[in-house]
Amino acid sequence: MRCRSSVKRAQTLDGRALAKRREERLRNEVEALRAKHGKVPGLAVVLVGNDPASHVYVSRKQQACRRVGVMDREYRLPADTSEDALVGLIAKLNRDADINGILVQLPLPEGMSKGRVLQSISPDKDVDAFHAESMGHALIGDESLAPCTPYGVLLLLDEAGIDVAGRDVVVINHSNLIGKPLAALLMNRNATVTVCHKGTKDLLHHTRNADILVTATGVPGLINAAAIKEGAVVVDVGLGRAKDGTLKGDVADDVWEKASWVSPVPGGVGPMTISVLVENTVRSFRRKMGLA
Amino acid sequence: MRCRSSVKRAQTLDGRALAKRREERLRNEVEALRAKHGKVPGLAVVLVGNDPASHVYVSRKQQACRRVGVMDREYRLPADTSEDALVGLIAKLNRDADINGILVQLPLPEGMSKGRVLQSISPDKDVDAFHAESMGHALIGDESLAPCTPYGVLLLLDEAGIDVAGRDVVVINHSNLIGKPLAALLMNRNATVTVCHKGTKDLLHHTRNADILVTATGVPGLINAAAIKEGAVVVDVGLGRAKDGTLKGDVADDVWEKASWVSPVPGGVGPMTISVLVENTVRSFRRKMGLA
Repeated sequence: MRCRSSVKRAQTLDGRALAKRREERLRNEVEALRAKHGKVPGLAVVLVGNDPASHVYVSRKQQACRRVGVMDREYRLPADTSEDALVGLIAKLNRDADINGILVQLPLPEGMSKGRVLQSISPDKDVDAFHAESMGHALIGDESLAPCTPYGVLLLLDEAGIDVAGRDVVVINHSNLIGKPLAALLMNRNATVTVCHKGTKDLLHHTRNADILVTATGVPGLINAAAIKEGAVVVDVGLGRAKDGTLKGDVADDVWEKASWVSPVPGGVGPMTISVLVENTVRSFRRKMGLA
Repeated sequence: MRCRSSVKRAQTLDGRALAKRREERLRNEVEALRAKHGKVPGLAVVLVGNDPASHVYVSRKQQACRRVGVMDREYRLPADTSEDALVGLIAKLNRDADINGILVQLPLPEGMSKGRVLQSISPDKDVDAFHAESMGHALIGDESLAPCTPYGVLLLLDEAGIDVAGRDVVVINHSNLIGKPLAALLMNRNATVTVCHKGTKDLLHHTRNADILVTATGVPGLINAAAIKEGAVVVDVGLGRAKDGTLKGDVADDVWEKASWVSPVPGGVGPMTISVLVENTVRSFRRKMGLA
């Protein structure tokens, strides 16, 4: 019989702390760029409509820009903005020399073609890396503008000294925004990657074999201790409304007693996503200035 | 005790026959295009150096073009051609109105940057779909110019009525040319995809769970009956030199007694790769003519 203490055993993949450290380095870098070149990187933040969660996300991204000294310029458009008008604004921002990154907050209002809108962003300024060209570069191993959430996951693992090479990594999500680009980055790092989703016939078979499990389903508590292997690393990219009305990750509390590392929600992947977005804006600026 | 007959049990994923049927349809399509528009699709085939296998592959692709009525134009360059000269030729072909597809046969001579050369092909004419933009389109689910070998694998499965959705599909290969784009196409079709490679710590764990196994290692006989599940579908994309000097696939003979379907080598995926290449050239032509 094994004796288990009631103390949480897993260590924390602390995205809040890591993002803070990376922000401090970035602030110094931006200050040096300003001192030397008289300019700072600029991010255009485009928000269409009145989705309350989107307002929160956009505001966090803007705050992060301000903390590191990146210029942010906000465009709030009414929900009834036409797709053509939005694409027209993006075309203008593509030509704007003060703008190095263009962020169009998702979701877009009903009826707008996310594909057309995202593909209209110049790949040079595609700091979310949602453009086909950015996705393709990530897939072939050129990660100069890396997809924010997937790259944030890898930074968290890297900081904890967790090498994905040769490990069985299971991702529950196969969307264009998370699962597919994350699979690409994991393949680039020689992980053995399995991508699951709601059509997977035996999810537990896969999750129980995972050395590293990344879950992004939005179903609170979907991943409990019985779903994981002893000592697994569990990265929680989920956010969904629990029965009590609060927003929660995919990972149940008992996972902390069986895993070796867990990323909390909030304070795990979320801050890393924002951190990578701002880093991408600075990288885009450096590239335009011929510095990278 | 189970009784096994000595007769091969698996059915054949017959790429030669399927490619032939698709070629017949394509020949009619090209003939109709010629009759209506007075032009046919054109493929530029660029071969640098004297790799004997490359000569064989290029010749097969040219023969396929001729069978369906696609114009092929050959460029044979000496092995000491400079990378700049090659990129210069590609730039010229990108502008050439008679050329709808540009195929640069791999491998390139030592010292040439495959990345730079492939990225210099206009995405419109990228019939091999190796360009970052083509790869990205495939990854986000827009497969208008599909990667040839991966798409050929899916056509073979489709012809046999094998739906990948929800099935456990294991791919042994994580290269930019095969494993990564194949994983993309499989994710698009809601398969549960696992991508393995030589760094995978327990390959058998994965292969034995596969409903569908796609192997592209170039190690003859790597996959034997013990490596697969009873009734699995096995697609052999391998080609390597066996001890007796002959070229063989990855799949050992005893797999045919345990699998439900197997693609042979030769006559499986190989003809499909060529078929998709020619189809992509026709598709590129149609798109340019505003017909697709």
